[in-house]
Amino acid sequence: MNAYVMLGVFQTTQKLRAALRRLSRAGLPPLDLQMQFLRRGRCPRSVALSRKLHVGADGSRSSPAAAPQRLPFSRVTVEDLAIFRKILPGRVITDPDLVRSSNEDWLKSVRGSSEVLLRPQTTQEVSQILRYCNSRNLAVTPQGGNTGLVGGSVPVYDEIILSTSFMKNILFFDNISGILTCQAGCVLENLVLYLEERDYIMPLDLGAKGSCQIGGNVATNAGGLRLLRYGSLHGTVLGLEVVLADGQVLDCLSTLRKDNTGYDLKQLFIGSEGTLGVITAVSILCPRKPKSINVVFLGCETFDQLLKTFQLCKGMLGEILSAFEFLDSECMRLLNTHLKLPNPISDCPFYIVIETSGSDSKHDSQKLHNFLEEAMTSLLVTDGTVATEDTKIKALWSMRERVTEALIHDGFTYKYDISLPVERIYQLMTDMRQHLGNRARSVVGYGHVGDGNLHLNITSSARDLALLASIEPFVYEWTARFHGSISAEHGLGLKKRNYIYYSKSGPAVALMGNIKTLLDPKGILNPYKTLPDDLK
Amino acid sequence: MNAYVMLGVFQTTQKLRAALRRLSRAGLPPLDLQMQFLRRGRCPRSVALSRKLHVGADGSRSSPAAAPQRLPFSRVTVEDLAIFRKILPGRVITDPDLVRSSNEDWLKSVRGSSEVLLRPQTTQEVSQILRYCNSRNLAVTPQGGNTGLVGGSVPVYDEIILSTSFMKNILFFDNISGILTCQAGCVLENLVLYLEERDYIMPLDLGAKGSCQIGGNVATNAGGLRLLRYGSLHGTVLGLEVVLADGQVLDCLSTLRKDNTGYDLKQLFIGSEGTLGVITAVSILCPRKPKSINVVFLGCETFDQLLKTFQLCKGMLGEILSAFEFLDSECMRLLNTHLKLPNPISDCPFYIVIETSGSDSKHDSQKLHNFLEEAMTSLLVTDGTVATEDTKIKALWSMRERVTEALIHDGFTYKYDISLPVERIYQLMTDMRQHLGNRARSVVGYGHVGDGNLHLNITSSARDLALLASIEPFVYEWTARFHGSISAEHGLGLKKRNYIYYSKSGPAVALMGNIKTLLDPKGILNPYKTLPDDLK
Repeated sequence: MNAYVMLGVFQTTQKLRAALRRLSRAGLPPLDLQMQFLRRGRCPRSVALSRKLHVGADGSRSSPAAAPQRLPFSRVTVEDLAIFRKILPGRVITDPDLVRSSNEDWLKSVRGSSEVLLRPQTTQEVSQILRYCNSRNLAVTPQGGNTGLVGGSVPVYDEIILSTSFMKNILFFDNISGILTCQAGCVLENLVLYLEERDYIMPLDLGAKGSCQIGGNVATNAGGLRLLRYGSLHGTVLGLEVVLADGQVLDCLSTLRKDNTGYDLKQLFIGSEGTLGVITAVSILCPRKPKSINVVFLGCETFDQLLKTFQLCKGMLGEILSAFEFLDSECMRLLNTHLKLPNPISDCPFYIVIETSGSDSKHDSQKLHNFLEEAMTSLLVTDGTVATEDTKIKALWSMRERVTEALIHDGFTYKYDISLPVERIYQLMTDMRQHLGNRARSVVGYGHVGDGNLHLNITSSARDLALLASIEPFVYEWTARFHGSISAEHGLGLKKRNYIYYSKSGPAVALMGNIKTLLDPKGILNPYKTLPDDLK
Repeated sequence: MNAYVMLGVFQTTQKLRAALRRLSRAGLPPLDLQMQFLRRGRCPRSVALSRKLHVGADGSRSSPAAAPQRLPFSRVTVEDLAIFRKILPGRVITDPDLVRSSNEDWLKSVRGSSEVLLRPQTTQEVSQILRYCNSRNLAVTPQGGNTGLVGGSVPVYDEIILSTSFMKNILFFDNISGILTCQAGCVLENLVLYLEERDYIMPLDLGAKGSCQIGGNVATNAGGLRLLRYGSLHGTVLGLEVVLADGQVLDCLSTLRKDNTGYDLKQLFIGSEGTLGVITAVSILCPRKPKSINVVFLGCETFDQLLKTFQLCKGMLGEILSAFEFLDSECMRLLNTHLKLPNPISDCPFYIVIETSGSDSKHDSQKLHNFLEEAMTSLLVTDGTVATEDTKIKALWSMRERVTEALIHDGFTYKYDISLPVERIYQLMTDMRQHLGNRARSVVGYGHVGDGNLHLNITSSARDLALLASIEPFVYEWTARFHGSISAEHGLGLKKRNYIYYSKSGPAVALMGNIKTLLDPKGILNPYKTLPDDLK
């Protein structure tokens, strides 16, 4: 649908005309370019942080987030390297300059000291490597695009880095069922482009899509922007091929929507952060590409009104609703201040980004029109703007997606990824602000309302242990009180492994430990991650 | 939307007028009544079958489907009963007449000889029972609505039957998120009615909804009619409470859409058929109730045209498509012959049932109209009829749902539930017919095209070992050759446990065995089910 059609839909409704401010004045660069800028790490703070080795959120070794003592794994010898070179001719990297970037996470918040980076191309090679490492008691950190936020994808000490970057073949696509089968190292954006030509989309979309790999997405059970519509990877991933710690290849690479023959083993590896096996191939159910996409940016006076707008939206947009995201006025301030992104509407305490995806542009715009009319006449929203063209859709989306970037410019950032019953998510923000008083520079909230997922971020001018002590365990205790999750979509990795008990019971964590021992008796796979230290 | 509106939509299209035959002449009784009739077991063949104890598909003990020798579990003593009566006052059933129906499966194809039926009301009671049984080495068969098709929910020998029928409390419903939390024994239809009043629906729908229980649905990973739209239970089940074999309560009863804190343990129990733990409570994400539902019944000349219709349908109906089912002309013959159900359209080799569910009846009917016009002008479908009113929708649906019932009247039935790449599903039918020649009475195919799931049923006048030898392993080998699943949605239970290797690799089955041993070291939970005998 073009903007003209959309305008036509709106022209009968006086009240909504004000909402239709054109976005041209914003003149935002495309999101992808911005992400590339961010990834080059030109923020001075990042450089300073990168000098710290495997530290926790507070930079100290005493924090539950800090790395434990190195476990008694073997150290890589010249003989080991010779074996690796035989298995992977020309793909064993030991040049420190080349290994460095794989030692460090995307946020430059944790860094390992691995001296070996392996780049297999085939499942068989992964199998040979793991079989050897297991026999030699050598620890291995599997790594995809290394875009995780909890220090899960980099070594803590000298673990061998097993990169899936060279495993980037698309193996099969069934154009009737929309089932894609590919190697684990396929970059998400490349899959998106491949499917685009075939009139399909990936069921997940992430800001990091230009770098992240599907194997890593599955290993961290990535959520992202389309979960509201297409559900989690536990539903859309149909099959996995996994190499176990001892080199055994577990072939669960089904390409069927239904298969009830025994236990659904692949589920164990979705979200296990490479601690139970190395995912080498994925089959995933892809939705048809929507013919029509609209994005609306709205303003609300209160969070209660925002929730009512969500309810109204679910009822009136129904099956075409594909995202319902929010940011608060503090996010907008940071976008304005640090990125010079102007507010596309008038100032409000809360902002909503709604996306619709459907198969009939006229129907979609009518539904959207009806919804907006109801939302405005019932005074749930106070201002808004609509985008139907691709560049303007991207510009509106960037108001939500670039908050992370704006935060980096604001100072040292404490990041929390909380899942709560949706009616509670902003209460945590209010309580946290009251609790911290003026000790923090900024306390900002944004996230996926549709999924009950709040990204709570707190900044200070520099690392501040007293401030951290005020935030934690307050934030975790608050979350646990309302039966929330202390990691909605980022995982536990290194940084949050010891906080697991805030969201999981002792028997559940103990069972996880038993499953780890069953699948990886020597514990060589991604040690110090996911499970708490007291299990090891 | 009423029928008038629908007629209005169609009146401009001459070609489609013929498709709008009214269903009133069919005069079908409501489906629910028919199901009740079926459940009362008034089919004489069922009575005969019920005299056979735990037999396989061929009735012999030599079949891979037959029960293995009894394992050395303890036998229930008077002292055990006294303990049970203390834990469950008034809810320990030993009257043989009362225990009988719980010993026998819905199809009356397998029967155990248990003498004890326990009816706990709380998780704590389940925990106490299992702790005791585990300590005494007493085997236990968990049982929900006992509507399974593979002999998974009844004892094989004298296993204690642990029924969840008295655990029928709805614990919580969040009207904003649509997340329902309830005890495992809630009957699916009761949940449907509860949600209906709150403007929501269950994400799964089954013919057995009047009897089946949500705990059993989850334990068998039930598929059903809405999977195409709302996905599998691996995606929609958000949390489970499970009592493990040793009585430990595993609380994974999250009510969050996102939770990445450690391994997703609940997934292990979805589809494990009560062999890893007893599900005592479920939280599940429920979709909003659609405001508009339409059902179309169409006829096609070839299966290739049927697949092309499916492709067209996915593109043109997009987000409102909620079911795409099929039956072949042999099914129609059985419906006509045994149930006197007249064909609502003219005779065709293939029939399609399409359901749409949406939030705007006008939009939905326009989309449907456009699709039907395209399907008929491009000669993909040759005839059809549309229903928009509830009773007529049910009548059309019954043409698909009552095939099972018609089969019972046709003779002894060999049932197969196969998952295949969608373009292969009817090739199996053709090959099977050719392979069997005139040895079978009927060879009929129906199922969920949208999910690649074929229900292949073969009948004969009486049990026929020679015929069975012609069907098996032919059907399993054929399925394995095309990487299909030999049990798409029914599970393995007792009857299909030894066929698991046709769909799962040796290492995968071995890992399942290790997980079973980890969670249930004595093997007391639902023995002889799901896993093959060679693992035990």
